[in-house]
Amino acid sequence: MRRKGLASMAVQAAESSAGAAGIPAAGTSAASDVSLGSAVALSCRECGTRVPLGPSFVCLECFGPLEVAYELPTGDPERLRKQIEAGPASMWRYAPLLPVPADVADKPNLNPGFTQLVQADRLAAELGVTGGLYVKDDSGNPTHSFKDRPVAIALEAARAFGFTTLSCSSTGNLAGAVGAAASRAGLRSCVFIPDGLEQSKVVMAAIYGGDLVAIDGTYDDVNRFCSELIGDPLGEGWGFTNVNLRPFYAEGSKTLAYEICEQLGWKLPDQIVIPVASGCQLVKIDKGLRELVELGLVEDKPVRIFAAQAEGCSPVSRAFKDGGVVRPVRRPDTIAKSLAIGDPADGPYVIDICRGSGGAVEDVNDAEIVDAMKLLARTEGVFAETAGGVTLGVTRKLLEAGVVDPSLSTVVLNTGDGLKTLDAVASSSGPSAVIAPSLSAFRAAGLA
Amino acid sequence: MRRKGLASMAVQAAESSAGAAGIPAAGTSAASDVSLGSAVALSCRECGTRVPLGPSFVCLECFGPLEVAYELPTGDPERLRKQIEAGPASMWRYAPLLPVPADVADKPNLNPGFTQLVQADRLAAELGVTGGLYVKDDSGNPTHSFKDRPVAIALEAARAFGFTTLSCSSTGNLAGAVGAAASRAGLRSCVFIPDGLEQSKVVMAAIYGGDLVAIDGTYDDVNRFCSELIGDPLGEGWGFTNVNLRPFYAEGSKTLAYEICEQLGWKLPDQIVIPVASGCQLVKIDKGLRELVELGLVEDKPVRIFAAQAEGCSPVSRAFKDGGVVRPVRRPDTIAKSLAIGDPADGPYVIDICRGSGGAVEDVNDAEIVDAMKLLARTEGVFAETAGGVTLGVTRKLLEAGVVDPSLSTVVLNTGDGLKTLDAVASSSGPSAVIAPSLSAFRAAGLA
Ligand SMILES: [Zn+2]
Ligand SMILES: [Zn+2]
Repeated sequence: MRRKGLASMAVQAAESSAGAAGIPAAGTSAASDVSLGSAVALSCRECGTRVPLGPSFVCLECFGPLEVAYELPTGDPERLRKQIEAGPASMWRYAPLLPVPADVADKPNLNPGFTQLVQADRLAAELGVTGGLYVKDDSGNPTHSFKDRPVAIALEAARAFGFTTLSCSSTGNLAGAVGAAASRAGLRSCVFIPDGLEQSKVVMAAIYGGDLVAIDGTYDDVNRFCSELIGDPLGEGWGFTNVNLRPFYAEGSKTLAYEICEQLGWKLPDQIVIPVASGCQLVKIDKGLRELVELGLVEDKPVRIFAAQAEGCSPVSRAFKDGGVVRPVRRPDTIAKSLAIGDPADGPYVIDICRGSGGAVEDVNDAEIVDAMKLLARTEGVFAETAGGVTLGVTRKLLEAGVVDPSLSTVVLNTGDGLKTLDAVASSSGPSAVIAPSLSAFRAAGLA
Repeated sequence: MRRKGLASMAVQAAESSAGAAGIPAAGTSAASDVSLGSAVALSCRECGTRVPLGPSFVCLECFGPLEVAYELPTGDPERLRKQIEAGPASMWRYAPLLPVPADVADKPNLNPGFTQLVQADRLAAELGVTGGLYVKDDSGNPTHSFKDRPVAIALEAARAFGFTTLSCSSTGNLAGAVGAAASRAGLRSCVFIPDGLEQSKVVMAAIYGGDLVAIDGTYDDVNRFCSELIGDPLGEGWGFTNVNLRPFYAEGSKTLAYEICEQLGWKLPDQIVIPVASGCQLVKIDKGLRELVELGLVEDKPVRIFAAQAEGCSPVSRAFKDGGVVRPVRRPDTIAKSLAIGDPADGPYVIDICRGSGGAVEDVNDAEIVDAMKLLARTEGVFAETAGGVTLGVTRKLLEAGVVDPSLSTVVLNTGDGLKTLDAVASSSGPSAVIAPSLSAFRAAGLA
């Protein structure tokens, strides 16, 4: 058992209501009614115990995290590949590999995914990468972050379990994704954020008309509060995307792996750089890559996985470097607020995966984050969120250190949108000149 | 000859340099070198005079606007339909119908388009629309506005003509689109905006690393300045997307028509509501619809076209209602800044098209714009720019007036992103409550 965070959440939940962790809550569908595609059960990542599909997230045997277990399609990989390629231009092209009903694309949802894999030749030239450099740009999602992916799957689980309110604890992006998805689907939403987020994220969390509650505390305080709420009658009928729906929600990040490989021509990349907040995304991308190999959709080869954090909240990077355990950061202090999770539930798994794959975990400071955001915009026309600056900044740092290999194909994730973290660059991104509308004024400005 | 704006621009240009209007400028490729797909010439919309493909935009015979003339693919429509459907998930699936080289998708560009057509059932229910209501959501484009489409085509023209700087006059969205596209392609950019735009648009215009020049004046002042610059040696080698590359640029909006029809299952909609700034987009969507009929890709039927403006800059709406000519608005005053073009070049064409199709032109005030933005977010999870609030607000107004028919299929355009016009809704979109992280505090807030 590795996940201290989840264990304590489970204990809290078990104390207040047995239904919260292991057993579907009152008012939700019984497991036998549930039809979520090729998903057949939930299974403990640590001890393998299986429980029926339902709003459960912690193994009651060992407090390990529950994951979705599948009976994945068997048979001719070429046929599956063709089926996927003929599917919609969204993550639902991979519906057979996800815990969603087969007709998911026909239900009201945001249809996220199948975002661009940008072949970043100009960036590669600046960084000296010769093996091919790609930016997976998830700012193209409906609410402009990768969060639309996991939320779309959590929404299907919420519908299957009969929840009427969609909720989450969020550093901002998730709140917007939940609000938008709930509105499209006709569910109520009530989302929780730490007070003091970027204005654009606050507005985006509120604009969809659900309830938005700011909590006077850090993200980790918000998260703890949500775990309490699940165990309380107040939270009855509520699906928390990243708590009681977490096993489903988490699977959404697998689609990043699927898309990257399909967009590379059904090939694994040699190296991939992924930002780490809770660590869930990295763990699931790793899982997605392995599934593609198992299904015969891509040929197996080593993939080095790199994790990127912001120096001001780098518990996983520190633990990777000093060889110790992941120690929570009590007061995150970074412009990469979407990564400011001080107590990352999947931190230990991230370290295992990076180490085991020949990768690494690294962090960059705020100035390096801004530099990388500007580098990406200047070379490839991609305006990334601060989190994108973190992954590119770490990529650059690890290239300079000789850790990332420039001769190998490398994919860097941009998981969000620069418009949501405007403050990080606003003071240094204004007009070159303000002039009168005349040729002489323009000539005087010296820009021609 | 209808277009006063262009005529005066042509005169200005002709006074300073013959090269600016009719003849390719020095330093650019001769027309014979140019290979832009099925485009064969430029042709005057008023008198039909043809000139070779080049950076020309005004007919030297009559001062009418030049348009791209094609030899469009002939033959089996079913084959063309299949070819399009097998193409990339971007506007380049329609490359055979555009003035771009056949290998356009392989060149470094933002690959915009093929954005979602949202089936807006919840919105339809609120508005009483029974014939099917759809929102074409162009916030999904790379820089989150429809401008990525025309810019992508202007970029190909700029490459073909040997321009080294990409430029524009812009109310904001276009500046970001040009900056991003130029960076991806490795061209220099220098863009011009009126001083005092939304911060997010200013940052987005600057972040890509090109030059951004704010002009002390209105958009129309900026536009006049750019026309002067083209005729001056200072502007040599500069491709202005919406001035000397305008005939190519303008064609980008046709792809909105193509996509809407393909996404409706190769059918024309019955009604379509389009925002009007210069009017160019509406004119080209109309053209795109007609091309699909001519190519046999859709069955012909009447399409009623509606134009939407903001009350604070509604020269076309006013002219439509009072039956007179389009009189410029000297001082636009609206939160829909992306539509604040006081002297719309294509205004008269817009009126002809709307009137001829059985449609109408209408405007809404700032409060109605904000209401419509919130309605769209609340019902469909789409966070539109103020311009999207204009089209939806006008749709609602015309439904209430019995002008838009609720029993017909209706497509409403959202051409931009709410994150770029945050100020319009920020003051009224905050947390429902700010609380301590405890169940008792949440209970006290009364939101459960
Ligand atoms: Zn267990
Ligand atoms: Zn003419």
